[in-house]
This record gives sequence, structure tokens and C-alpha cells, in this order.
Amino acid sequence: MNWQRYLQQKSDRSLVELIDFCRIPSISTDPDHTADCRRGAEWVVDRMHAAGLQAAEVIESRGHPVAYGEHLTVPGAPTVMVYGHYDVQPVDPVSDWTTPPFEPEVREGCLFARGASDDKGNMLSPILAAEAHLRTDDLPLNVKFFFEGEEEIGSPNLPPVFDQQAERFACDVVYSADGYQWGEDQPSLTTALRGICGVQIDVSGPERDLHSGAYGGTVHNPAAALSRIISSLVDGDGRVLVDGFYDGVADLSDEDRGHIAAVPFDEAEYLRDTGAPTLFGETGFTTRERNWARPSLEIDGMWSGATGEGRKAIIPASAHAKISCRLVAGQTPAAIVLALRRHVAAHTPPGVRAAVVDLRLSSEAYQMPVDHPANDVATTVLRELYGRDPYYTRTGGTIAILNMFRHHLQADTVMFAFGLHDENAHAPDEFFRLTSFTRAQNAYGRLFEILGAGALQKETT
Amino acid sequence: MNWQRYLQQKSDRSLVELIDFCRIPSISTDPDHTADCRRGAEWVVDRMHAAGLQAAEVIESRGHPVAYGEHLTVPGAPTVMVYGHYDVQPVDPVSDWTTPPFEPEVREGCLFARGASDDKGNMLSPILAAEAHLRTDDLPLNVKFFFEGEEEIGSPNLPPVFDQQAERFACDVVYSADGYQWGEDQPSLTTALRGICGVQIDVSGPERDLHSGAYGGTVHNPAAALSRIISSLVDGDGRVLVDGFYDGVADLSDEDRGHIAAVPFDEAEYLRDTGAPTLFGETGFTTRERNWARPSLEIDGMWSGATGEGRKAIIPASAHAKISCRLVAGQTPAAIVLALRRHVAAHTPPGVRAAVVDLRLSSEAYQMPVDHPANDVATTVLRELYGRDPYYTRTGGTIAILNMFRHHLQADTVMFAFGLHDENAHAPDEFFRLTSFTRAQNAYGRLFEILGAGALQKETT
Repeated sequence: MNWQRYLQQKSDRSLVELIDFCRIPSISTDPDHTADCRRGAEWVVDRMHAAGLQAAEVIESRGHPVAYGEHLTVPGAPTVMVYGHYDVQPVDPVSDWTTPPFEPEVREGCLFARGASDDKGNMLSPILAAEAHLRTDDLPLNVKFFFEGEEEIGSPNLPPVFDQQAERFACDVVYSADGYQWGEDQPSLTTALRGICGVQIDVSGPERDLHSGAYGGTVHNPAAALSRIISSLVDGDGRVLVDGFYDGVADLSDEDRGHIAAVPFDEAEYLRDTGAPTLFGETGFTTRERNWARPSLEIDGMWSGATGEGRKAIIPASAHAKISCRLVAGQTPAAIVLALRRHVAAHTPPGVRAAVVDLRLSSEAYQMPVDHPANDVATTVLRELYGRDPYYTRTGGTIAILNMFRHHLQADTVMFAFGLHDENAHAPDEFFRLTSFTRAQNAYGRLFEILGAGALQKETT
Repeated sequence: MNWQRYLQQKSDRSLVELIDFCRIPSISTDPDHTADCRRGAEWVVDRMHAAGLQAAEVIESRGHPVAYGEHLTVPGAPTVMVYGHYDVQPVDPVSDWTTPPFEPEVREGCLFARGASDDKGNMLSPILAAEAHLRTDDLPLNVKFFFEGEEEIGSPNLPPVFDQQAERFACDVVYSADGYQWGEDQPSLTTALRGICGVQIDVSGPERDLHSGAYGGTVHNPAAALSRIISSLVDGDGRVLVDGFYDGVADLSDEDRGHIAAVPFDEAEYLRDTGAPTLFGETGFTTRERNWARPSLEIDGMWSGATGEGRKAIIPASAHAKISCRLVAGQTPAAIVLALRRHVAAHTPPGVRAAVVDLRLSSEAYQMPVDHPANDVATTVLRELYGRDPYYTRTGGTIAILNMFRHHLQADTVMFAFGLHDENAHAPDEFFRLTSFTRAQNAYGRLFEILGAGALQKETT
């Protein structure tokens, strides 16, 4: 039996296993789910053992642990690291889910669960592919599996892990099982990702909520003051007004704009997908440029005073907003956080205090050459699977660990994952297509096969 | 035994009863507490029966019921209505309470509980005073007790009750057991109250929360758009910018300003009490004028997107704010709500939709002559109890029912209650001084006595 047949025979069992995996509420951002994150890591280690890998273990960090596995039995063959993450986004508002986020359900060929697409379905696939090789023949190359538990919070505790054990993780290249394909019928390879940083703005006024009858009109309302600060961050045309925000950001070259324009984009469809009344963004750039190649500033959330059913007539004691910026090459998270601090200090109205807290959600932007040999190998696999060449795209999202692989392991990373953009990755009703699950397993099976046959070396010479 | 001695003898029992009353979470704004509101009404009716009143019953309305009692045994004597409310404000944030809001606790001579001051401690007092008269002699006048359950939501369901049974509630004058005294040692009579209206602004953008990596920079962020709308409502100097907001508001006369300035005001102490860094308000008016005689617009609360512990990098699907305005003579709630609707429609930025919902929190401002005979009777009682003449004050707050008594019963209302302004009426750790509780009982006992002796008639002739 070949590995392809093995994957096919085990497909029902594999889905049951993914459902089991998605039952674990491994929300990395929420301290209440710390134990669940550990359960997630242990589930992955157990699964790697079951797959027949030479070694698998939980590697501790100061935060949620890493699920690590390796199979290094082919001296002289390349060593490839496969990356993914077992942690998931929060689930608020739970009431907007059709079925509970951690009670996975298959509907119309899709698995609905928090983490199904981002990233459990994707990251389980290379383990299944490795098992298929090991149970039918052997893995033709050396593989290291690195599945972290803090992707959704920017991997803050991984740098010390790399500092201490960089040699252990040494590899020729990384393939990331976290990311997206272009569409069900169209593959893509991502060559640039935006960075991110985040702050919380805390505005405080009176020391307690004040009765608006007894005090209304005499103190500055913190919710109004916060609104004024937020309104000062971005102008009416979508350009960020924070002094220094665009420092170091290169203008888009004609070549950059050409690459971006070469990828088809149906703006009407994109708009329909968002459900917003119209698109909106920085003047002078196309929608795609705004998302792929320009930094942005978003209000992730805000809250103040009376937010429930009741009608409280008050001046709230405080008002809060969470803000995150997506960054491009030339910007650093530290400089942007500092710029935000200065801006808020300069724009705090009288009668309130404002503090800026760094949410330590920090990652620089990442970019790799389109014609990198590891991209070429991936292109071969994708061409076989889809019958089409991939687009070379960018993404507006962030994967913090890519810069760590580059800095600590001197390894570039190919985004080789099979999520699709409509799968509600950070929203209610997240789902993963079962067709993508199958494809991901076959893609990694084939990737291991042709990398083992020396494709990477052939390409690089 | 005289009625004073009776009140004194029963003081321990009365406190136990108030504690029992405060255990009922009669939050009128929250549909989850509908049954608790009914329990509140029934508790009051039972207590009026126990006091020996001729009749007491629950009167139904379309909302929370009225607890009504009467004792009409002295033909020719005046008929006085005593007003109060058994409903209470919401308790958010519960975590800020030292002890749970519905587990009353006495600390340092104060009873801590939601509703202790506003208005359960106050409204129980005239019932206890009536009982003291009835158990020691008899009530020397005709009394009607009207305790509603929707004061905190603007008494929206009382107009039909008055329409249908106006004759039943006919009276010469109303004394309100809801309101404030100036201080522990200084009485006051309130001669003007502000009105109120409220709206919710709902801003919607994308049809779901969008991943800020995949979409950031390309659609208008609803939280940012709402901030922009809120910032357009009031200028940097505290003046409301809504077109038509000040229509019909008379300029303050020198006499008005003189009355207001005659009441002592320690601005530094006021500021300390709020805990805000500085005071803030409409240019051209004193702090007291801003609160007593000028309309104001406050953000009661707002919420959007990620408000919990987790860090979600999203564009929220929607953003919401609750806004209330305190009104003065010349403004009507309907006109202000309409002006707010028009303003929001004119100031909604591109890429989002905004809706304005009338929270039906509507009441006009109320004003009565300083030299009204019923004020003179109250002055006599207060002078006896405090050894000082009352200040004639205004208040920035609202009691919706005052306009109803005026319109339906042709009766003016004297604010005759004993709460103090520092008792956290609408905030965590609400409390009521036990000294105020005793004083309120004696004040109503004496009020009944001298009204029964014909004081009102003497004053009016």
C-alpha cells in the first residue's frame, strides 16, 4: 500500500481525531484556559507518538508549551521543519455561534469548531502525512514538527526557547501549516506578511460611576474623552494621524504594485464577503494594497460604563479601548507603541487621565523572495494538486514566529497551509472544509516525497 | 405613648425590616428581575397592611406594579399623597461592591445595599411614621401612599394608570420620599429638577467580526466610526453641538444666578468627591449652573468588539453607545431625540450604518415656586429637625413622576426625602445613613401632625 492509499483508508478515523482535537478549548489568550492549552499540547504529542515518529515530547516555555516531534533517520537528506499551532482564538460572542464552539459538528462538508481551520485542521495534516509514509514505507527525509501554543498572542515566550535550544531546531527550511490558500481551485504561496503591535488605552475620570443627574455637565465623561482620542488616531479618509506612524515605510514601487495587481481581485465580491455597506481605507491605494502592503490601525474593542440591558444614567468612571496596528517592512512594534503613547499623551482632553498599556502583541512584518527554492518545491506540489500554478500573494495577517525562525534558525518559511479566507478564523462559526483537510494531508505527503528525492537541493544548485 | 416614642422603641425592628426589603433585587431596568419587582411591590403592600392602613393593594400597570395604600378617615382634613419607589438601579460592575448589593450589611452606622438610599430607606420611613400615629393615636389627616416600581426607567407605564384612575389618586399636594437633603446638618428643599431623554446609537459595519489581518485597512471600523459620531456631539469646551439642542432654553436671569449662588458650594470639595482630575463643562457657566440649570449630554456606556481578557485582533461588526441628556425648562424629550436622530444621520461616516433608538427614558424638567405653601410646611418641619432653615435648591437629576402629578392630579410635589449625595445612589457600594433613616421617620411623623392641624390651609389662606 502506498501512502496516498493509507491516507484515504484512514480518512474517517482522521476526521474523528480532528473532532476530538477541536473539543479542547485551548484559548491561549485566556488565563482560565491554561490547563486546556496543556491538554492541547499533550494531545498533539500523543498523536505524534501514535504516528510512529522517532521522538515526541512537550517542551516547556514560560507560557503555553510547545508540542515537538522529530524523525531524523536519513543522513544526508534535508531536514525540514513543519510549523503549526494548537492554540485558538477566543469565542466571544458565544451566542453568535450556530453550534457551541467546542462541540465540533460537520455540516455540508465542513467541520464547524473554534480552531478547525486556524489551525488544528491544518496542523494535524502533516502528522497524518508523516504517519502515512511511516506505515507504508518510511519518511524519505528528516522532519521536525514544531507546534506552538501561543500563535494567537504573538508567541511571546518562544524567543528564550530558541535562545536555549537553537541547535535542536536547526533545519534547512520551514514549511508552515498555518496560513491560507487562494481558493478551492486556486493555490497560492504567500511571500509577505504584515507585522502587528497592540495597545490598550485606559481613560479614567471620576473615581466611581457618577449619577448623571447629580453630576452631569460638570466633569469630563471618560467615554466621550476616549472617543475623542480614538477619533484623533485616523483621519476621515483612513490615513493614520499618529506622528511617526509611517516613518520608514517605503513607497510602493511600480513593481510592487504590478505584483499585487497581477493577482485577480473581485472587489464587489470582497465587499459582499465583508457585509459592510462600502469599502473604506487610506486614500491613494487600492483595497488590496491597503490590506497587503500598507499598515493599518484598528479598534479591536472598546467598553465603558453601562453595557448591559439596563439603562443606567451615569458618567462612567472609565473607558477602555484595545487597538492593534498591522505593520509593514520598515516599521517596528516598539517604535509604533511609543508613537501611540506620545499621541495619546498629546491628545488627552482636559478632565481625564489616559494610560497606554503595551499588549505585547509584537511582531515585525515578514517578507521572502518569490523565487526562493523552497517556494519552487511548494509550487511543484500545488501544481500537481490543483492543476494550476499558484499565485504569489501577500497577506495582511501576521505570524510572529516567521521572524523567529529567520533570526534564530536562519531558516526561511514557506506558507504551506490550506485554510480559506471565508472560514471565520477569528469569528463565530469558524469552520474547515473537509476537502481542504484531505488536500492538506496529500500535499504534505507529496512535499515529503519530493523533498526526500532531493528536489530542494536540485533547485538550490 | 406618643408616636415619637413608638418610632424609637421600634427602631431595631425597623432596621431589620429595611434590610429585608433591600434583599429584594427589584431592578426595574432588567427583564430578568420582573418577578423580583413584583415581590418588591408585594412586600410594600404587606408592610402597609401591617402598619394598620385602611387599605393597601398592588395596582397593575403594563410594567412593574404600583404599591398603593390609603387611610382616609378625617373628613375635611387635607389629603396628602406620599410618593416613593421600590425599584432600584442595576448593580454593574458587581465586582466593585465591597459586599454583594443584595446582601445588606451595616458598617459604621450605614446600611450598604443597592436601593438602601434610593429609595427603599426613604420610602419605608413615611409608612413607619404612619404606623406610629396609628398605633399611638390616629392619623390626623388623609394619606395616600403611592410607591411605584419604574422610577429608574422614567415611569413609562404610569400615564395610563393616572388616565384611568385619576380620581382615586386625587390629593391636595404630594410629598416625595424620593430625593435628597443638603447635608447631615443642613436641610434643603428642591424647587427644580432637570428632565431626561435617552437614545442608543447602534453602528454596524461588516456583517461579522473580521480578522484584522485579512481585512484591516479596507473597511471602516465601527468602533472608530462610533467614536467619530460621539466626538461630534459635544465640542472641546463642553457645549453640545447637536443642532437645535438649546432651542427654547432661556438664558439664566440675574435672579436665577443669584438664587443659585446663594447656596454654598465648595468647588474643591465637589471635585474631591468626584475623584476626577479636574472639573469640566460648558464655557460661561459655573459648575453649579452647569448641573442645576443647564442641559447636559452624557455617554452612559459604550461597547464594541473585544471587551474581555483575550486579545482579539478584529474589526468588530458593530459598536454601540447609550446616551442620555438632562433637560431644562423649554426642552422636550421628543424634540431632543429627534435632534439627536438628525445629528447622527448627518454625522455618520462612510462605510458604516448608524441607527438611533429612543430608549423612552423621557421626562420634561420640573419646577415649582419657592414660596409654595406646601414648601412652607416642609420648612417648618425641617427647621425643627435640623435647627436651621433649608436652602432652596435645584437638582440636576430627574423624577419623571412629578410632571405626571402636575398634569393628571393638578398637584405640586414637595421633595421631602433624606438621602445624601455621597451615598452612591447609582454606583457600587450604595448606602443609607441610619441617622437619616431615623430622621426621615420623625420628619414624616411631624409632617402628618402639622398638616393634620391645618397648617397647609393656614398657609394657603
